[in-house]
Amino acid sequence: MEALVLEKKMDLSLRDFPIERDEVMGPHDVRIKLHTVGICGSDVHYYTHGKIGPFEVKAPMILGHEASGTVVDCGAAVTTLKVGDRVCMEPGIPDPNSRATRLGMYNIDPAVRFWATPPVHGILRPSCVHPEAFTFKLPDNVSFAEGAMVEPLAVGVHAATKARIRPGDIALVMGAGPIGLVTALSALAAGCARVFVTDIDDAKLEIAAGLGPITPINVLKENMVERIRQATDGWGVEVVFEATGSPQAAATVFEPLCPGGCVVMIGGQPNPISYDAGAAMVREARVENIFRYAHVFPRCVAMLSSGAIDVKPLLTRKFDFKDSVRAFEIAASAPKGDVKMQIELPQ
Amino acid sequence: MEALVLEKKMDLSLRDFPIERDEVMGPHDVRIKLHTVGICGSDVHYYTHGKIGPFEVKAPMILGHEASGTVVDCGAAVTTLKVGDRVCMEPGIPDPNSRATRLGMYNIDPAVRFWATPPVHGILRPSCVHPEAFTFKLPDNVSFAEGAMVEPLAVGVHAATKARIRPGDIALVMGAGPIGLVTALSALAAGCARVFVTDIDDAKLEIAAGLGPITPINVLKENMVERIRQATDGWGVEVVFEATGSPQAAATVFEPLCPGGCVVMIGGQPNPISYDAGAAMVREARVENIFRYAHVFPRCVAMLSSGAIDVKPLLTRKFDFKDSVRAFEIAASAPKGDVKMQIELPQ
Amino acid sequence: MEALVLEKKMDLSLRDFPIERDEVMGPHDVRIKLHTVGICGSDVHYYTHGKIGPFEVKAPMILGHEASGTVVDCGAAVTTLKVGDRVCMEPGIPDPNSRATRLGMYNIDPAVRFWATPPVHGILRPSCVHPEAFTFKLPDNVSFAEGAMVEPLAVGVHAATKARIRPGDIALVMGAGPIGLVTALSALAAGCARVFVTDIDDAKLEIAAGLGPITPINVLKENMVERIRQATDGWGVEVVFEATGSPQAAATVFEPLCPGGCVVMIGGQPNPISYDAGAAMVREARVENIFRYAHVFPRCVAMLSSGAIDVKPLLTRKFDFKDSVRAFEIAASAPKGDVKMQIELPQ
Amino acid sequence: MEALVLEKKMDLSLRDFPIERDEVMGPHDVRIKLHTVGICGSDVHYYTHGKIGPFEVKAPMILGHEASGTVVDCGAAVTTLKVGDRVCMEPGIPDPNSRATRLGMYNIDPAVRFWATPPVHGILRPSCVHPEAFTFKLPDNVSFAEGAMVEPLAVGVHAATKARIRPGDIALVMGAGPIGLVTALSALAAGCARVFVTDIDDAKLEIAAGLGPITPINVLKENMVERIRQATDGWGVEVVFEATGSPQAAATVFEPLCPGGCVVMIGGQPNPISYDAGAAMVREARVENIFRYAHVFPRCVAMLSSGAIDVKPLLTRKFDFKDSVRAFEIAASAPKGDVKMQIELPQ
Repeated sequence: MEALVLEKKMDLSLRDFPIERDEVMGPHDVRIKLHTVGICGSDVHYYTHGKIGPFEVKAPMILGHEASGTVVDCGAAVTTLKVGDRVCMEPGIPDPNSRATRLGMYNIDPAVRFWATPPVHGILRPSCVHPEAFTFKLPDNVSFAEGAMVEPLAVGVHAATKARIRPGDIALVMGAGPIGLVTALSALAAGCARVFVTDIDDAKLEIAAGLGPITPINVLKENMVERIRQATDGWGVEVVFEATGSPQAAATVFEPLCPGGCVVMIGGQPNPISYDAGAAMVREARVENIFRYAHVFPRCVAMLSSGAIDVKPLLTRKFDFKDSVRAFEIAASAPKGDVKMQIELPQ
Repeated sequence: MEALVLEKKMDLSLRDFPIERDEVMGPHDVRIKLHTVGICGSDVHYYTHGKIGPFEVKAPMILGHEASGTVVDCGAAVTTLKVGDRVCMEPGIPDPNSRATRLGMYNIDPAVRFWATPPVHGILRPSCVHPEAFTFKLPDNVSFAEGAMVEPLAVGVHAATKARIRPGDIALVMGAGPIGLVTALSALAAGCARVFVTDIDDAKLEIAAGLGPITPINVLKENMVERIRQATDGWGVEVVFEATGSPQAAATVFEPLCPGGCVVMIGGQPNPISYDAGAAMVREARVENIFRYAHVFPRCVAMLSSGAIDVKPLLTRKFDFKDSVRAFEIAASAPKGDVKMQIELPQ
Repeated sequence: MEALVLEKKMDLSLRDFPIERDEVMGPHDVRIKLHTVGICGSDVHYYTHGKIGPFEVKAPMILGHEASGTVVDCGAAVTTLKVGDRVCMEPGIPDPNSRATRLGMYNIDPAVRFWATPPVHGILRPSCVHPEAFTFKLPDNVSFAEGAMVEPLAVGVHAATKARIRPGDIALVMGAGPIGLVTALSALAAGCARVFVTDIDDAKLEIAAGLGPITPINVLKENMVERIRQATDGWGVEVVFEATGSPQAAATVFEPLCPGGCVVMIGGQPNPISYDAGAAMVREARVENIFRYAHVFPRCVAMLSSGAIDVKPLLTRKFDFKDSVRAFEIAASAPKGDVKMQIELPQ
Repeated sequence: MEALVLEKKMDLSLRDFPIERDEVMGPHDVRIKLHTVGICGSDVHYYTHGKIGPFEVKAPMILGHEASGTVVDCGAAVTTLKVGDRVCMEPGIPDPNSRATRLGMYNIDPAVRFWATPPVHGILRPSCVHPEAFTFKLPDNVSFAEGAMVEPLAVGVHAATKARIRPGDIALVMGAGPIGLVTALSALAAGCARVFVTDIDDAKLEIAAGLGPITPINVLKENMVERIRQATDGWGVEVVFEATGSPQAAATVFEPLCPGGCVVMIGGQPNPISYDAGAAMVREARVENIFRYAHVFPRCVAMLSSGAIDVKPLLTRKFDFKDSVRAFEIAASAPKGDVKMQIELPQ
């Protein structure tokens, strides 16, 4: 079948690609016809750099892991889904027998197989086979485009869950990229009275400001710590979400934090970063480091359906599958004002 | 000064009443001209029954504890408020040296002095003296009427905080009275994807249904447990808030609860209730019993200001101070379709 | 093979009993030669009453679920155990695909199959087949007798874990039966400075008092609440463990509790109990209801090995397998001074 | 009165020193005749360096903050203490009206006044005046020497509390100085099955190994991570306590940690340290940064009294008050095999 294949760094092609493994469907699996696939920063990074940390593209690999589609076949033991169901899919499948999985932390099971993380193929292709347990039905009022946003949204919701936000907290989200924005939405949905979002790009900050009681701060133009101190009577924010992945930003997480506050490290950092231990100590800061998400896909679907979270303002551009290569070229150029680009497969 | 005085059970009068204690203002106190005072079910209960549990009205007592107003004088040591500030007030003042207070749980300090709880006077009167630490400035976009709703809202927000709601939880609120409704609003603000609200009064349920993603259930007409099972694929709700105060309702809190879920007991129960220990055990239910609130007033104000919570639909009727006695007579008749009645003092 | 079979209520026999299912060993299973099996109150209850709650003995069933033994065969996929390993076994096997199991709460998966709970056979028999994941190696310094105590100890450790004991807490354990005593040991190991234990039997209380900084209270002779108030300067205990299963005792759990304290309901209650909602509310009590245990077997083994917990004083009598019927007759007579009786199988 | 005065860096004298402030005793204060004062690393650091971080000795200052003594006078409002009571004292007094204090986190109130932290005097002097609320009665079976150990022990108990140790956890304590050792004792008391302690000094590690189920690791001779992996079947430890204050050690806290584990930063770090964000992320590590302690003094006293913690092995040398200067000279030389030196005042 035709798939979007990363042949090697900076070399994408849309071509026939056989996926043997998917021909076999177990009793607990479903086969899904893909409908919409979002372009993630990690997809783009594999395209432009050929690797992320220890994960290197050594053989042609299909990209894509933010997906929605329609069930077209069900294994014999499947009970919660049926042919025709519109669904979204969690891209990481853990070992059910690992110690971390049994403890309920399947996302940090080292044996997780995750779409579009070498050597596992992604799903920019017509169909895939997936376990029922990681496939979630979309209600009628959640579109395929929104369904394909559940994956990035899950990162924000998991971060907000780990922060243990209490209603009325004030939060700061560092970074107004797609992950920063879903985190801001998640923080508001999780109880924050309001959220500050920082970035260096006014276009992104303008989008952020339109998403709810969000105060944008351009850190090139304003002193973020001063601004937050003034707005909080000198107390600071209860939660800081680091979603830039920038070592410079990560080094400053404790200054805007209130006594007893929480910092959530979301943005991946390839190298050790600088940690202001003194500032952390005098606040007795709690730091939560998160890795993807666990158990939150059905929660995201429920919040999209009820209106608790609205991701539609983040969906800024759509491409046909046949234009996938061009879509990635554009995404790699980091166009201003774009948050999430998605690709629609032929139905 | 003129005050609304409960002389004894079923005997209210609007008359001059001297309050010696308030003549003295300490360095950390402010004097507040009252603007709006809400009528609470406990005020009405003192009026109709003369007592609540061990608290008995043995001498004439001024009613009212849900209040907003304007600062008209500040003690010498006051730093966060100034004359002219519009404020709401937390009605319970703990002993700062008690063990519970030092641990941060001032609401369960047995020495708390609470407005309109015998023998402490309430604030249906022109002015009062109150500590700065329990007086909170209202932003310009929060009205006096909303400010006087902070007190009941605080009960809901405290309950939602204790429940430790995670984003995407489904909750059930038993009871659509004022406390049930602020709890439903708080549960949504705290991260619930949606909330079921039960009652036996369709008028109240209709108001509930208009407040957000809330599903009303009239327990006289529907099987609540079946309805919730169907809506949650047999799993149950993550949180049950008991806000009826009815022993019959309280006896059923575990059946709709999911494995590992939480029950929050809000409604006061004068007598021991029936507890389905077997149903609690097989779910490993956690039960949180709450008493008023602590540390949530500024959080409520922030959420009203940001729009995270909107209490305006609950404000169904307003009276002039001179009509206070009639207001209580009407409140005591429990009129259909009314949620919160408030009294406005002359300015 | 020869097994201790409960033919029906009050009718035990030691006789040949074929267990088809155990003949088949999967790749993740081990075969275990049983060494020591403890007699649990539930075993005795099935013997004397033929049922516990909804679980009724409708066909002959082998008793016993507190066990240790030696691995005599390993499935092809087993990696953590080998032939000759001395082990103890967790008696409940959940459905790995259930929602509760995936969330890490496998003990409250309704599909759990649990030894000696009708219709699942127990292990008072020469050998059994068991999943590797629920079989735990015993270090050299943990005896078979101690290994067979891990199952009841797990209840106490799970209860202490759920209580979230902080170092220096004072606890009250209601009930000095085997579960009460392992709970007292667990509470001390989990950080309690000291523990009060109540019962109506001085012989049991004497054993309790010998286990560490434990203060026995005979509730027939002393006012428990007064005693605790005096010993805690009027504050109360931080944790109350209800381990009697008596409705009368369960009705009194809140009075000795401190503000903000936690009650853990361990003892099974067949019927709804009386719950002093007012006393729970003014303390903002947290109530944890527990059901068996999850994830604690390896923790118990580690604590027995390190000396953090010593269960040897609880091992008061031992029987040969051939005397099993007599052992149960004695256990059913509830002899004074006995805590845990165990049966040793021929090796 | 005669006091041990740090005149300036490297200049100590035992001399008359007037303390005006202590002459005034408020209604909630007690006057205490000092008995035993421990020498803390911070006392020695002020002696040798004249400052710690931003705190600089700019005028002669009395040293000492780990103290026990006897009540010799009580303010009019004191209710829990009486003349003759043997006591220990918490050295930091917060502002009761600060926001952090009201929330129960008085240790991170910036306004705390702490003994022997410039410009506040310490208590190496005959007597002091102190608030009742921060003075704790010692039971008969807790000696003055043990009482003076409550202050450092409180750091370890607070760290163990913040870690939220579950019974059966395995912990690693980095550093076998006094704080490392009280942390190891606290971790065991708080539920750890066993504890690894690292250091580079075999004499200290030998003392550590004698305190309970503690495994010493000399990081100059052994690969700490490998050792822990082997001992935990590759899983890692549930809790890492960083108690060295060494940036090199602090940079390695995540490698020995298990998935979902917790790191507690105890050792003060004057400068930003290196933080292995990738290693923290793949484990979803939680990091707790602690600052002194709050609410744990009475807990420490209770655990010393019950035997849950025994600090006597740490008390390695005692000096008369008249030999205080020499005591500090010896302490500054960091003698091998010494853990805690104490000074006894004339009675």
